[in-house]
Amino acid sequence: MKQIERIGVSLEKGLLSAFDKLVAKQDYPNRSEAIRDMVRDRLSSEQLANPEAKAVAAVCLVYDHHSTKLMEKLTALQHNRLLETICTTHIHLDAHDCMEIIVLKGKVGEINKMGEKLLSQKGVKLGKINLMATEGV
Amino acid sequence: MKQIERIGVSLEKGLLSAFDKLVAKQDYPNRSEAIRDMVRDRLSSEQLANPEAKAVAAVCLVYDHHSTKLMEKLTALQHNRLLETICTTHIHLDAHDCMEIIVLKGKVGEINKMGEKLLSQKGVKLGKINLMATEGV
Amino acid sequence: MKQIERIGVSLEKGLLSAFDKLVAKQDYPNRSEAIRDMVRDRLSSEQLANPEAKAVAAVCLVYDHHSTKLMEKLTALQHNRLLETICTTHIHLDAHDCMEIIVLKGKVGEINKMGEKLLSQKGVKLGKINLMATEGV
Amino acid sequence: MKQIERIGVSLEKGLLSAFDKLVAKQDYPNRSEAIRDMVRDRLSSEQLANPEAKAVAAVCLVYDHHSTKLMEKLTALQHNRLLETICTTHIHLDAHDCMEIIVLKGKVGEINKMGEKLLSQKGVKLGKINLMATEGV
Repeated sequence: MKQIERIGVSLEKGLLSAFDKLVAKQDYPNRSEAIRDMVRDRLSSEQLANPEAKAVAAVCLVYDHHSTKLMEKLTALQHNRLLETICTTHIHLDAHDCMEIIVLKGKVGEINKMGEKLLSQKGVKLGKINLMATEGV
Repeated sequence: MKQIERIGVSLEKGLLSAFDKLVAKQDYPNRSEAIRDMVRDRLSSEQLANPEAKAVAAVCLVYDHHSTKLMEKLTALQHNRLLETICTTHIHLDAHDCMEIIVLKGKVGEINKMGEKLLSQKGVKLGKINLMATEGV
Repeated sequence: MKQIERIGVSLEKGLLSAFDKLVAKQDYPNRSEAIRDMVRDRLSSEQLANPEAKAVAAVCLVYDHHSTKLMEKLTALQHNRLLETICTTHIHLDAHDCMEIIVLKGKVGEINKMGEKLLSQKGVKLGKINLMATEGV
Repeated sequence: MKQIERIGVSLEKGLLSAFDKLVAKQDYPNRSEAIRDMVRDRLSSEQLANPEAKAVAAVCLVYDHHSTKLMEKLTALQHNRLLETICTTHIHLDAHDCMEIIVLKGKVGEINKMGEKLLSQKGVKLGKINLMATEGV
């Protein structure tokens, strides 16, 4: 069981009422949950600025599965010794295009390098590297 | 077979040589592939500014699977009639934390609304909504 | 004098201690100020997703002042009837390059359109459109 | 006079036609100018990932000028020895709020540290650190 602490926060009346509307609109159960989310998001962003920080990432690719040997190349790249490839999810978007989500674990700098290599393959049309740092959040 | 066109592009010598270094560093097979990637990325971003545009998204969540009824709530939310939930991948990060990647298809505005609802659940610690617009790319 | 309200926020002990380190590192006078900043930032981002919302923007351009008639074109563009151009700051970076910061006030959608026009001018090398929504923050 | 080189780029017919629409919509004089902008933007982003890279930045702040001693503190912070503060532009937004744009020159890491210190001051409501790396673009 995690230990919970309670702190007091002062806000201008107008700011609080604007915040309460946002909390309701985004379906948060209460203000504390919204504030905890902002704090965790800030902590994660802060860590991601450090290439040595530990992170998990979902590298999302859209590619044409008819591209010669692309799937073999993507798979080969994932056998990288500095990163742990946790799993890959493959989705059929239409007759040509696939979406592939590759979950990686390792250092921020290494994940970015690997992400760039995956994105630069011929046949890969779109790609995003989505990092999250889970340390201490 | 897709029809290929060839265009000419003028660049300052210094800019071209800096670009060539980036192409090599990011492992692109050639300049054309790097330029196509930038064009597609720009087109996708442009479309994503429109709430009515069609997109696919990977909503990445990190949550504590001990949170009461969170998994039921996340699953219920995915039974939304305006969006197609394509699939969900679940990864065990450690004794407490899971990563879940929910792939959604639909309009940008609807995906963002759903993403916010998923992220605001109590127990969800970190989350990112990663959209890509595949129309015409 | 603005009326101040005080609310209570619950956080896990570990999250609070990581947050306290961030507050100290970023030189915040206290936790409340850091939380108010995050709340305002979130409210501003939320508003900026709406093309009709009111905003101020600093459009930052880097350009070569030797480009034929660029300065005249940039000035002409700023005489736009839907936006208020508040002021322009011009900085000499080196023998060729200038930085120009154009402060605009108006609707988010109009600012983005104007920003794109400024950025697409021949001679403009780099550009960023930086929006902030000040309503209710 | 800068030396210009001409390269050939291959694109799928559909991608080219979508790109031509974007070029027209964003008022680019031609495709080359749009591609040069994307290349420069990518090179700048690449450099900004390195804390040691040289950059210019416009730190944009919105603050209440009634905040006690804020203006003195902001000015004092700008007398930093590791960064060159080029200039500051001050805009009166309404009876309470000002916008201030502080142009800094120096290393990416130092600019970010200074930016965080400016943003965390009591009275500063909103802030953005906008970096551009001009080396080789």
